[in-house]
Amino acid sequence: MKIAVIGATGTVGRAVFAELAKRHEAVEIGATRGAHRVDLTDVDSIRRLFDSIGRVDAIVAAAGHVHFGPLVEMTPAQFRRGLDDKLMGQVNLVLTARDYLNDGGSFTLTSGIVGAEVILQGASAAAVNGAIEGFVRGAAIELPRGLRINAVSPTMLEEAAESFGPYFRGFEPAPGARVALAYSRSVEGAETGRVYKVH
Amino acid sequence: MKIAVIGATGTVGRAVFAELAKRHEAVEIGATRGAHRVDLTDVDSIRRLFDSIGRVDAIVAAAGHVHFGPLVEMTPAQFRRGLDDKLMGQVNLVLTARDYLNDGGSFTLTSGIVGAEVILQGASAAAVNGAIEGFVRGAAIELPRGLRINAVSPTMLEEAAESFGPYFRGFEPAPGARVALAYSRSVEGAETGRVYKVH
Ligand SMILES: NC(=O)c1ccc[n+]([C@@H]2O[C@H](COP(=O)([O-])OP(=O)(O)OC[C@H]3O[C@@H](n4cnc5c(N)ncnc54)[C@H](OP(=O)(O)O)[C@@H]3O)[C@@H](O)[C@H]2O)c1
Ligand SMILES: NC(=O)c1ccc[n+]([C@@H]2O[C@H](COP(=O)([O-])OP(=O)(O)OC[C@H]3O[C@@H](n4cnc5c(N)ncnc54)[C@H](OP(=O)(O)O)[C@@H]3O)[C@@H](O)[C@H]2O)c1
Repeated sequence: MKIAVIGATGTVGRAVFAELAKRHEAVEIGATRGAHRVDLTDVDSIRRLFDSIGRVDAIVAAAGHVHFGPLVEMTPAQFRRGLDDKLMGQVNLVLTARDYLNDGGSFTLTSGIVGAEVILQGASAAAVNGAIEGFVRGAAIELPRGLRINAVSPTMLEEAAESFGPYFRGFEPAPGARVALAYSRSVEGAETGRVYKVH
Repeated sequence: MKIAVIGATGTVGRAVFAELAKRHEAVEIGATRGAHRVDLTDVDSIRRLFDSIGRVDAIVAAAGHVHFGPLVEMTPAQFRRGLDDKLMGQVNLVLTARDYLNDGGSFTLTSGIVGAEVILQGASAAAVNGAIEGFVRGAAIELPRGLRINAVSPTMLEEAAESFGPYFRGFEPAPGARVALAYSRSVEGAETGRVYKVH
């Protein structure tokens, strides 16, 4: 399979890329680094990416920012950050890149543990992750040509514990390689509309 | 209790208002109709509303538009409609009106069956409802002064079957009066971070 891995230069994406590249033609895509570049908040940038790399059998997204901060200090603009970036980035990808997926191809998006399990300072992340998971369930029954869509909901990665540890006291981190298995299961399996939790 | 019912002039809100007004001082609030007016997409409008009606013991929101349409035709702008209106409207309300709630007061927001159960043309609604439910879970553990927050997820109302029926073939509609009980349970109970499903 030819697989576009968006966010392949990040903590999650690097692990996913390593797993999929073992047995597939994985295409490394970042925003500021990597073999190819895209800005998911910009539909034209998504089109340019796929015009350049061509049709693929699977698209994985592990990218997107969300504001973490105390609810009582959060402004609507801060709350909106995750909607504009992590949520709309991945939605833009599905609405735009669909035409570049071969029949039977798949999208695998990224949500996250926050929302299913709540943490302090995570109200915006909980909304964004809930939205991504709802979108995946809704979109799954409408995609044409046997296209599939799933999400992976990772817990905090071991590789991210230094920066995110203080938000996730008491949570069991997972090695990136273990989280990457869920992406492989989505890409190489046959299910659609699923949220694969790694937590 | 003094209870602000936002969207009280709509299909859901009318039923909620009727239930709560039986034993409480319910304040009827609409956008273009009703005793008081607010535009939840505008933070200043929310402030003006509460400066005018004063502090309350509970705030209910049953308002917000979402685009329904086939996924394969949906534009990012159409998808965004529900984020800007139904989601951010209710988030703005929580971030802004919190200061006008008496200690121990509650927010009750509205999500909807779509997302938990999917329908054709409902991918955006599924995202918005998932976001509202995630937000409620996340915000519940951070609200100060014993404030609570829940959501109600109604199925299609009998009163809305004429307009929404074609989207919900095979779904069992619920009378508004039955849906209103879930709002009463949220307002008059003691739980927080819950999603009360009426389906
Ligand atoms: N790390 C965790 O423990 C964890 C746990 C659960 C969920 N998640 C979720 O997983 C996703 C990735 O997290 P991460 O920790 O791997 O992040 P990260 O290390 O910051 O990596 C982000 C990746 O996305 C790319 N990127 C940034 N903005 C982009 C844009 N506008 N368009 C396209 N690509 C963009 C980056 O490219 P460049 O590097 O080239 O700039 C990078 O490859 C996030 O949505 C996060 O919420 C992470
Ligand atoms: N109806 C159903 O079967 C059903 C089922 C599940 C979920 N829901 C959800 O419940 C909510 C209400 O639905 P509905 O059917 O009752 O809608 P509706 O009949 O159209 O009523 C909408 C209500 O919200 C008010 N409103 C509109 N825009 C507003 C704004 N920007 N700020 C504040 N208030 C605003 C309207 O005021 P005016 O009338 O004064 O203009 C009206 O009171 C929606 O989010 C919907 O998704 C509905």
